[in-house]
Amino acid sequence: MARRTPVLPSATLSERTGGDVVLKAESLQRTGAFKLRGALSKLHALGEGCASGVVCGSAGNHAQALAFAARARGVPCEVFMPDGAPIAKVEATAALGARVILGGSSVDDCLVLARERAAEAGMAFVHPFDDPDIVAGQGTLGLELLEDIPDLATVVVPVGGGGLASGVAIAVKSARPDVRVVGVQVETVAAYPASLRAGTPIGVDSALTIADGIAVKKPGELTLRLIGQWLDDVVVVSEDAVAEAMVMLLEKAKLVVEGAGAVGVAALLGGQVEAARTGTTCAILSGGNVDAGLLAAVARRNETEAGRRRVLLTRVPDRPGALAALLDCVANEGANIVDVAHMREGIGLHVRETGVQLTIETRSREHADTVVAAIRAAGYGVSQHPEAE
Amino acid sequence: MARRTPVLPSATLSERTGGDVVLKAESLQRTGAFKLRGALSKLHALGEGCASGVVCGSAGNHAQALAFAARARGVPCEVFMPDGAPIAKVEATAALGARVILGGSSVDDCLVLARERAAEAGMAFVHPFDDPDIVAGQGTLGLELLEDIPDLATVVVPVGGGGLASGVAIAVKSARPDVRVVGVQVETVAAYPASLRAGTPIGVDSALTIADGIAVKKPGELTLRLIGQWLDDVVVVSEDAVAEAMVMLLEKAKLVVEGAGAVGVAALLGGQVEAARTGTTCAILSGGNVDAGLLAAVARRNETEAGRRRVLLTRVPDRPGALAALLDCVANEGANIVDVAHMREGIGLHVRETGVQLTIETRSREHADTVVAAIRAAGYGVSQHPEAE
Repeated sequence: MARRTPVLPSATLSERTGGDVVLKAESLQRTGAFKLRGALSKLHALGEGCASGVVCGSAGNHAQALAFAARARGVPCEVFMPDGAPIAKVEATAALGARVILGGSSVDDCLVLARERAAEAGMAFVHPFDDPDIVAGQGTLGLELLEDIPDLATVVVPVGGGGLASGVAIAVKSARPDVRVVGVQVETVAAYPASLRAGTPIGVDSALTIADGIAVKKPGELTLRLIGQWLDDVVVVSEDAVAEAMVMLLEKAKLVVEGAGAVGVAALLGGQVEAARTGTTCAILSGGNVDAGLLAAVARRNETEAGRRRVLLTRVPDRPGALAALLDCVANEGANIVDVAHMREGIGLHVRETGVQLTIETRSREHADTVVAAIRAAGYGVSQHPEAE
Repeated sequence: MARRTPVLPSATLSERTGGDVVLKAESLQRTGAFKLRGALSKLHALGEGCASGVVCGSAGNHAQALAFAARARGVPCEVFMPDGAPIAKVEATAALGARVILGGSSVDDCLVLARERAAEAGMAFVHPFDDPDIVAGQGTLGLELLEDIPDLATVVVPVGGGGLASGVAIAVKSARPDVRVVGVQVETVAAYPASLRAGTPIGVDSALTIADGIAVKKPGELTLRLIGQWLDDVVVVSEDAVAEAMVMLLEKAKLVVEGAGAVGVAALLGGQVEAARTGTTCAILSGGNVDAGLLAAVARRNETEAGRRRVLLTRVPDRPGALAALLDCVANEGANIVDVAHMREGIGLHVRETGVQLTIETRSREHADTVVAAIRAAGYGVSQHPEAE
């Protein structure tokens, strides 16, 4: 029922790391992420136990996966989502036949509501990761790696709650203990390193991240133990490195991969994980559910050449006229505006402030410097790509 | 040497067409397009005949494919590209070891220069499509379809020069004459329908199109004959339908597909090709080499909900200050600007004019109408999505 997703060689990653690197394109899984594997396995394990239906709390891939699995099995599904959940995710989940209940201000609230509802209605609560059946289901991805990559040497896997990473590590290392399995978290929400050191789940603050699919504040009891036992290492990558990995995957691999799915590639490009010298290194692209606006911003990121054309990140108050005033300032210096992109996520902004990424085209590097100076003189903060300064 | 690209089921296309639809993701081919198949086959056929090297004229996928194939075989490669070729394509071709010579104002000029250079240097000229070895090479994609889709009923294939379509049709129909093979062109550069009626290649004017990979002004002598003989039909889709197909592929199938590669999906969505009632329909996604800016514009396209948020297409003179004046006009009406995207391709523009796609957020549908009226009163033409009018 889950699709066997393709393993694709990557010439770019192989060249840049000096190893043989392939990509497990799990972004091409039904519902756009690996979560379907665990959901199907959980429902199978529940058997008659889910006849009255299943309930979960999630704002993301787990919700769609559970809805899909429940529909396939013909049982009711209810999903609690936070009040501010994107309409697109609500609609996608509802389109799969689930009843979506908006309420609670965070995913944690939704988990509480979902547990209550399950207990009261005699339905089965399905946790997104801290459950042995879920872990076993995600592990089927590891079995495919063993079959499809005979000389598998290293696996690089995203870590959020830890369900995918522990499932894959158990499946792979039970058969091939010599394979190295390394987990990757994003710096903004990286609960595992400290939790592993402490030997107990330690929460971190929630934060906006480009890798929202792995923004899990606290490891599970089960998954923390499994990750500690089965993984060789858990490393951390930066937000910027994730964005660059997404660009590389779009431009070179021709794949739409969400931030959470791109952390493994980021770790290979950044050197946090070394590609194996002998044998094949596989980066798991765990999902492809990325918001269209973010995708557009990412696609544009690498368009720029240094010098005449320059990308400036500024902030303007979020009210009518603010952007026009900034553009006037650029126009007065005789520069052409090639592009204006708004950024409301992934950078620290005040509530009534908008990040604006201006791409300007000038006559020369010196001219570009003049324009930047003028914008600064008008009171706008400007940050540029480091190589331009 | 060419990669066997995956065949991926598409739930979205199956639902929308009422048939079983799968995608042949040839966008994941090495060098990002099917062209590599033909180039490898041609070099193999040339044997010792290409020892002194190969030459082509191309601004796109054929250039990279030939460069890749020549490097693999260890023979020199020279590529003639038009003066205005995008730096990214020049660099990608050079990075594959080819010598790139800029000259001539069009691809046709480059073909002439390439033939001359080949004759004078004793190198082999490699035509992008009008060559039996190239056609045979592209046909290997058809063989994979036969093997990977046992109940194949209909194949939908992009048509530019006609090399891929004729190769695939010959391969598929030689084994399975009952399979329907339909070619698809884009309305802006659709030379085949009239040429097929006339029985001889008839050229059309060149035009900017979102599907630049199939913007071939005149069919080949050989390929026109083969297409007439082997294809069941050649249909035509609009620019807009291609953009929508690209969006669907990005958002639902998680694949980066260039305009030329998305025309088959456009034809299925638009009803120009009907999905088979029994058996599987396969749309060939022929390539994924799309410019980052265009990808960003496409990703943003479907972000909009009707009503308060509205997308307006306007034109401004391509000089400093022009955009600022337009935005002032919006600001004066109290609307917020959510996004500004520049469009320089795919729409009919004067040379010193830029298309600007403004996304505005207003208080109500009525307020949005007022803003549009104000922009028009200030002398800017505005077109909107039809449902907003």
